Amino acid sequence: MTIIEPAEVPRLADNVEQAAPGELAKLLEFRPGQSFAAVDAESTPGFSGDKADGRAAHDLDNAVLKDLQERLFANTKAGGLKRAFVLVLQGRDSSGKGGIVRHVAGAVSPHGVVTAAFGVPTEEEAAHHFLWRIYRKLPRFGTIAVFDRSHYEDILVPRVRGLTPPRVWQERYDVINEFEEGLAESGVDVIKVMLTISPEKQAERLRDRIVRIDKQWKHSRGDLEDRRDWDEYTEAFQDLLERTSTESAPWYVVPADRKWYSRWAVVRLLIDRLQDLDLQWPRGTFDPEVELALLEKSDPRRR
Amino acid sequence: MTIIEPAEVPRLADNVEQAAPGELAKLLEFRPGQSFAAVDAESTPGFSGDKADGRAAHDLDNAVLKDLQERLFANTKAGGLKRAFVLVLQGRDSSGKGGIVRHVAGAVSPHGVVTAAFGVPTEEEAAHHFLWRIYRKLPRFGTIAVFDRSHYEDILVPRVRGLTPPRVWQERYDVINEFEEGLAESGVDVIKVMLTISPEKQAERLRDRIVRIDKQWKHSRGDLEDRRDWDEYTEAFQDLLERTSTESAPWYVVPADRKWYSRWAVVRLLIDRLQDLDLQWPRGTFDPEVELALLEKSDPRRR
Repeated sequence: MTIIEPAEVPRLADNVEQAAPGELAKLLEFRPGQSFAAVDAESTPGFSGDKADGRAAHDLDNAVLKDLQERLFANTKAGGLKRAFVLVLQGRDSSGKGGIVRHVAGAVSPHGVVTAAFGVPTEEEAAHHFLWRIYRKLPRFGTIAVFDRSHYEDILVPRVRGLTPPRVWQERYDVINEFEEGLAESGVDVIKVMLTISPEKQAERLRDRIVRIDKQWKHSRGDLEDRRDWDEYTEAFQDLLERTSTESAPWYVVPADRKWYSRWAVVRLLIDRLQDLDLQWPRGTFDPEVELALLEKSDPRRR
Repeated sequence: MTIIEPAEVPRLADNVEQAAPGELAKLLEFRPGQSFAAVDAESTPGFSGDKADGRAAHDLDNAVLKDLQERLFANTKAGGLKRAFVLVLQGRDSSGKGGIVRHVAGAVSPHGVVTAAFGVPTEEEAAHHFLWRIYRKLPRFGTIAVFDRSHYEDILVPRVRGLTPPRVWQERYDVINEFEEGLAESGVDVIKVMLTISPEKQAERLRDRIVRIDKQWKHSRGDLEDRRDWDEYTEAFQDLLERTSTESAPWYVVPADRKWYSRWAVVRLLIDRLQDLDLQWPRGTFDPEVELALLEKSDPRRR
């Protein structure tokens, strides 16, 4: 009897230059003092190719991510590993958060991923501590949670809209830092992505929602109000990045005018964290010869 | 200003003969008196092509499913529609339930689908009515829930394993029929798929879990015990189909030796139900000219 090794994970395309996952993380990590507004939303740091190349690279990376997630799940189930990941996606309206959720969730097994979108708090949510609804969506060990918006909304929106006294949202920087540090200490890593989009690209996408029959249901007057307050949000993002980019949970600023780029980059950031675990397939604790003999004996045609 | 129509939904491939969604549903629907054991697990009812054709057709259908699900979601959000779907997958070990979950969930937007796997009840689940854990996973209106096993386990396992007096699981046929009828009356359609696999194909797949490094973590001695009780399960499936295939929630028996076929068939069964709703894109309740003027005024570069 031969123990069969799995097929090789597909190689990444090498017809374009692309930063390795770890290098990309360094390129995109927010550095204290860095200007959020100065990041070029059209740029493609760490990737030299065009849209077609980006998509091809993304497809290959998806297969890598799927394999890594399954190893994470397998080691949790059969090896007692207690690790999970939360991918937080923040960014202005139409910066492509939903599309990234779809691509990441579509790449891995659905039992290995849970997605959550955090909109305007419901009555029940608003009646709780602002982290209550976040806690409820934390991933099981062995899985990845993808958050379309997050607890960071509870700083951004109250601040820009003046919904609470400043003291209330100002206190939340520390509360969040401690929350995320506690998560990391218990095996749940938070990977935080701030998507950045240009005013021109946003206008194009919001216009689509007004004039395209299949997108009109997505249009919201509130998006136009947020766009009007562009600069106030820019300031709020800057402070957020400065105050909550920590060693255990740094922010990554990802240019998002080109959707193919932001999708590739986010998947690669996830791959980087998963590769750090260096997960091997857990070996069965059984004797394969014994199990094969039992399989033979269980044959219903031999009864 | 022109209102732009969405791109056409891709046409289905016509290089092979495939039953239309409605015809396929009729072909696969369990008929009273039909023998479950007699269904050829290798057959491909309603599809004349091979694996490559099946995959191509499946890819095209995925795009149709994605479009239909988004229309369902859009009509719920912007049109007040109150409809949802539960896809129930039952079948022996290694019949491919997990793969179908992955393919269906991967085809649509993750916010439009929720997946759940119902294994051996946890201590908390076992301390409740057997439908408690099912109710908790019912889909929001506008979405599809995909169940990897379901409330039907609470008839099958107690029966074959003798875990309860027969009266307990026998009563559940009626309880389940009433539960599903109630769901249908309140807008939640249950689509029930019984996958059927041959003993030969199951042996092949269970053997893989014993000898393949990347699959050993999936091996369970319990699967071999269930295989030994093949005929008892066949009887239990037969009675289940007879007793719970109802007008509002019929069972579909889907041959599953060829994974490409069962995936294609299940997606097509879902498409059939969604197409019945004849969902158009909900028109915006706003005046596009007014919104476009507001978009123009919201330009941060003009402040």
